[in-house]
Amino acid sequence: MHPLLKLKRFFIGKPLRLDEQHHELLPKWKALAVLSSDALSSVAYATEEILIALVVAGSSAMVWSIPIALVILALMLVVTLSYRMTIDAYPNGGGAYTVAKENLGSHAGLVAGAALMIDYILTLAVSVAAGTANLASAFPSLQNYVVLISLIVILGLTLMSLRGISEQATFFAYPTYFFIFSMAAMLLSGAWKIHSGEGVSLPTPTYLPEIGLVLIFKAFASGCSAMTGIEAITNGIPLFREPKTKNAKTTMSAMVIILGFLFFGTTYLANQYVLQPLPDKTIIAQLASGVFGDGPAFYIVQACVAMILFLAANTAYAGFPALASLLARDRYAPRQLASIGDKLVFSNSIFGLSLAAAFLIFIFQGEPHALIPLYAVGVFLSFSLSQAGMVVHHLRKKESGWKSALALNFTGAIATTAVLLVITYSKFSHGAWIVVFLIPSLVFTFSRVHRHYLDFSKELGAVSPSYSLVHSKVSNRVIIPISGIHVGVIHAIQYGNTISSQIQVCMVETDPAASDRVKSTWNTVASDIPLTILPSPYRSVLLPLLDYIDQVRRQNPGDYITILVPEFVTAKWYHQFLHNQTAFFLKAALIGKPKIVVTSVRYHLKTT
Amino acid sequence: MHPLLKLKRFFIGKPLRLDEQHHELLPKWKALAVLSSDALSSVAYATEEILIALVVAGSSAMVWSIPIALVILALMLVVTLSYRMTIDAYPNGGGAYTVAKENLGSHAGLVAGAALMIDYILTLAVSVAAGTANLASAFPSLQNYVVLISLIVILGLTLMSLRGISEQATFFAYPTYFFIFSMAAMLLSGAWKIHSGEGVSLPTPTYLPEIGLVLIFKAFASGCSAMTGIEAITNGIPLFREPKTKNAKTTMSAMVIILGFLFFGTTYLANQYVLQPLPDKTIIAQLASGVFGDGPAFYIVQACVAMILFLAANTAYAGFPALASLLARDRYAPRQLASIGDKLVFSNSIFGLSLAAAFLIFIFQGEPHALIPLYAVGVFLSFSLSQAGMVVHHLRKKESGWKSALALNFTGAIATTAVLLVITYSKFSHGAWIVVFLIPSLVFTFSRVHRHYLDFSKELGAVSPSYSLVHSKVSNRVIIPISGIHVGVIHAIQYGNTISSQIQVCMVETDPAASDRVKSTWNTVASDIPLTILPSPYRSVLLPLLDYIDQVRRQNPGDYITILVPEFVTAKWYHQFLHNQTAFFLKAALIGKPKIVVTSVRYHLKTT
Repeated sequence: MHPLLKLKRFFIGKPLRLDEQHHELLPKWKALAVLSSDALSSVAYATEEILIALVVAGSSAMVWSIPIALVILALMLVVTLSYRMTIDAYPNGGGAYTVAKENLGSHAGLVAGAALMIDYILTLAVSVAAGTANLASAFPSLQNYVVLISLIVILGLTLMSLRGISEQATFFAYPTYFFIFSMAAMLLSGAWKIHSGEGVSLPTPTYLPEIGLVLIFKAFASGCSAMTGIEAITNGIPLFREPKTKNAKTTMSAMVIILGFLFFGTTYLANQYVLQPLPDKTIIAQLASGVFGDGPAFYIVQACVAMILFLAANTAYAGFPALASLLARDRYAPRQLASIGDKLVFSNSIFGLSLAAAFLIFIFQGEPHALIPLYAVGVFLSFSLSQAGMVVHHLRKKESGWKSALALNFTGAIATTAVLLVITYSKFSHGAWIVVFLIPSLVFTFSRVHRHYLDFSKELGAVSPSYSLVHSKVSNRVIIPISGIHVGVIHAIQYGNTISSQIQVCMVETDPAASDRVKSTWNTVASDIPLTILPSPYRSVLLPLLDYIDQVRRQNPGDYITILVPEFVTAKWYHQFLHNQTAFFLKAALIGKPKIVVTSVRYHLKTT
Repeated sequence: MHPLLKLKRFFIGKPLRLDEQHHELLPKWKALAVLSSDALSSVAYATEEILIALVVAGSSAMVWSIPIALVILALMLVVTLSYRMTIDAYPNGGGAYTVAKENLGSHAGLVAGAALMIDYILTLAVSVAAGTANLASAFPSLQNYVVLISLIVILGLTLMSLRGISEQATFFAYPTYFFIFSMAAMLLSGAWKIHSGEGVSLPTPTYLPEIGLVLIFKAFASGCSAMTGIEAITNGIPLFREPKTKNAKTTMSAMVIILGFLFFGTTYLANQYVLQPLPDKTIIAQLASGVFGDGPAFYIVQACVAMILFLAANTAYAGFPALASLLARDRYAPRQLASIGDKLVFSNSIFGLSLAAAFLIFIFQGEPHALIPLYAVGVFLSFSLSQAGMVVHHLRKKESGWKSALALNFTGAIATTAVLLVITYSKFSHGAWIVVFLIPSLVFTFSRVHRHYLDFSKELGAVSPSYSLVHSKVSNRVIIPISGIHVGVIHAIQYGNTISSQIQVCMVETDPAASDRVKSTWNTVASDIPLTILPSPYRSVLLPLLDYIDQVRRQNPGDYITILVPEFVTAKWYHQFLHNQTAFFLKAALIGKPKIVVTSVRYHLKTT
């Protein structure tokens, strides 16, 4: 194996067989762990977001977080019931892009696609930022390095994805359960301490102070970040064992019950413990140290929180390339992204995702609170498009039981659309405008790409292939530029002999003594092949060569001209850059000329 | 012209004819302007460097700057007389690399080459940083953006160099004279004001306070930055009109007289005006506002100072590629750098230089004072190698008058070596260690590159070319991977017919319906060419193709296998990335396999 490939393989791993991961179907307990990290991890920031929104009205206003959390719980219930219908209707995976495209048309599909694309980037950015914030809450000395740590985590996740460590691997199941159990232990211990009158200094106010509706909207919009990732199971149905849809629905219900319990429990206890949002200690960390003190239990909770957040970040690396592939198959994205089975192609998506998230983290200084307003718009836009698509689906298909399903999806569509409007309105100036601007831009780009591919097919189709066209006779002249006579040149001439009987060799003269030596050797070894010496007064290698090629081209109009460039593959990869620049520059310079083919003939050096 | 090329041409300009610049020979006054900006611009920082070194011993210690400046003036005189000998001996340009290599051997030459390479990078970094510092002294609101401004200036200089705006252009002559006249006006006005007892509050102490020798050494080492660029004329002799060497020597003497006057004058007046080094106002700026107040004259001086510094920075863009080309011709650097006449190659040097300088500016936060210790070591190392080389030159050649020339060069060699030791010692911990470490690393790299090229020639020479070897018969099979039947494929088959009679076409099946359509069309248009459909269970395009190629290779050992990949050149350059990925990935995947040639056959799309 070439050493450059060895290096690449070290980082990227052996060729990917993406679908092989799916051979092993998952039991429900494992599917829950694998598919719910994104949803459950939002517990780590949702309560804090509500409190940050409310604290501007004074700390007494924070008690509003409890009714707001209850409304969000109700919304979770509606959305879950609604998504259970999607599982029935799309057992092969019903992402928002598919559901919207099939039922609402390609434009709605593209809007959903754009929203999802942004969501995946923000899942990565927000989860990594929040995970780092929780690490830094446990180890305050890390506070000054949150951006750096977040970027390093993204780098690590990128390398893991490139190596193809699948998110279905069993060891990814543990952190989810560690998180669930550590959070549950914390919430229950905390509740017990409150109940037994231990440890809390101030009583929570039991009335709701008057605050403006706008503020309540803002706090609610912030809290809706608890619902990110809730739809992941609808994409993962093929991973389940039979009966797939039933198992998927059961798992989704279980997930939402756990999510609701953890989210409400955290919000309730945060009120009981009278926690205030702090810049350098997350609410979860405050709660953990409030309940457990600063002993090992605190560090265990923080480790579990950080772990599930990084795990949630990792889910973006599975979802994003899959979405890009869907878009590419429908010709809305560069078509090479469609062949998701090719590691080299797949890695382009991975790099794109990582760079976008790293950019966001850098711009927003790794602050989860600054990123979340960008997150929620896309999430609820894809929710509402998906639900609206399901409404149309039921009206069209009228499958058995469609009426109650329609009612559920209709409720879901109305609820999520209303929430989308609330979020867009209340978070617009906090960053949501970026997404509101980005989504149409992405849709426009998708459309332009599509348009190009359509025009392209048309232009290609305009020439109808026929036997005589395919077999029409053309002539091919070969030009071999050399810099001396050596084994690489000999190989190039051998190869040239196989492809044409009209070979011309040329050499740019940068040193007259050298070209004289070449001329005399040439006469003894290949006197039947014409050798042209090209003068180069300005020590340029390319310009005389390009002039010569142009001249041959004018003398032989209609012929193909093949430039054979002898190249070397060095034994040590880092020596490669000491050779082989000519072919690269020639290709760049000749890209505009039809019927000129530049071919590198490689000679493999053994020792150097 | 291809739009991508248009874009490139917009930024990079038309193909370079580097030596054309030299057709117009320069009169002395213009040569002085062109070749002395580097040397003269050091006046902008040298005095300040001395004062910064002295101020740690209290402000009374700063009067030491006057005797130190006098010693530096003496050193300038010695070095100038010494370099006049070099002009006589090397009328075609005697850079330190050439002189050291020819007289002291290739290792000394490489050390000089490494020192010069670092010098060019630091000429750029220091001059840009100092120019920006003077701009920011005039406009204090720029203080927070010095790094950004410096980077923008480097970007601007890079684009100018890429466009080939030569430093010999007439309009580059003006800033030098503006600088000389504005500085002279400032110094003379200042001296007049002192003489007439105007404007200065405190009398300068007239005695030298006792300070340690180490501090004097440090201040002296700092002040030696005044001598950077003094050797530029020895590289530029071919630019002069006849009699070249005489004119060059006269110009060099004129330059050093101006340099000495400006440097000493600045140092003297800085003492008279009792100036203290300040972080946000350069000494030159303080002097200008001290002499002229804050009116237009102050801004004119600052503009002239910034201009000459940026002009000095620009000289690095001529020197660095020329040096890289010399090293490449001697096979110490990648050989493509030798053909300096090729714009595309030339631009690699330009980018390398800009990136290195930008990196230094970024690391040292655009602070000239932090960069200068790195600068002086390289400068004096190349001075002393050059002088030592001249000593050996005289001893060998014994040309007429060699004895007095030897005496001068010997004095020069001793003086510059002594200064080199003083600088290295006193600046080691301030950054000079970086250069002390870098120079051997560069020399090592040069040697390894050289070693590789020697081994490479040996390996290539091991096969002696003969008529029978050149004309030995080999067979060539052609494989054309297609994704459908269209005009691009037809062109590829037409081309394939010219190069082989053994063509095989294959198609990766990602959609059975599509491959069925292709199969039926195929039978009507090219039934004589075998078409193989390759199954792809994992939606990979590359893996089935690589397997197939491998199979053909095993079945036909010894044959060349040419993979012809139909490609498209799009009408709009930004559509290019929507196509043509296959050839790229195939080449990357097949780089390790001998006797496989991957060729792109381009079809030029007309409308898309």
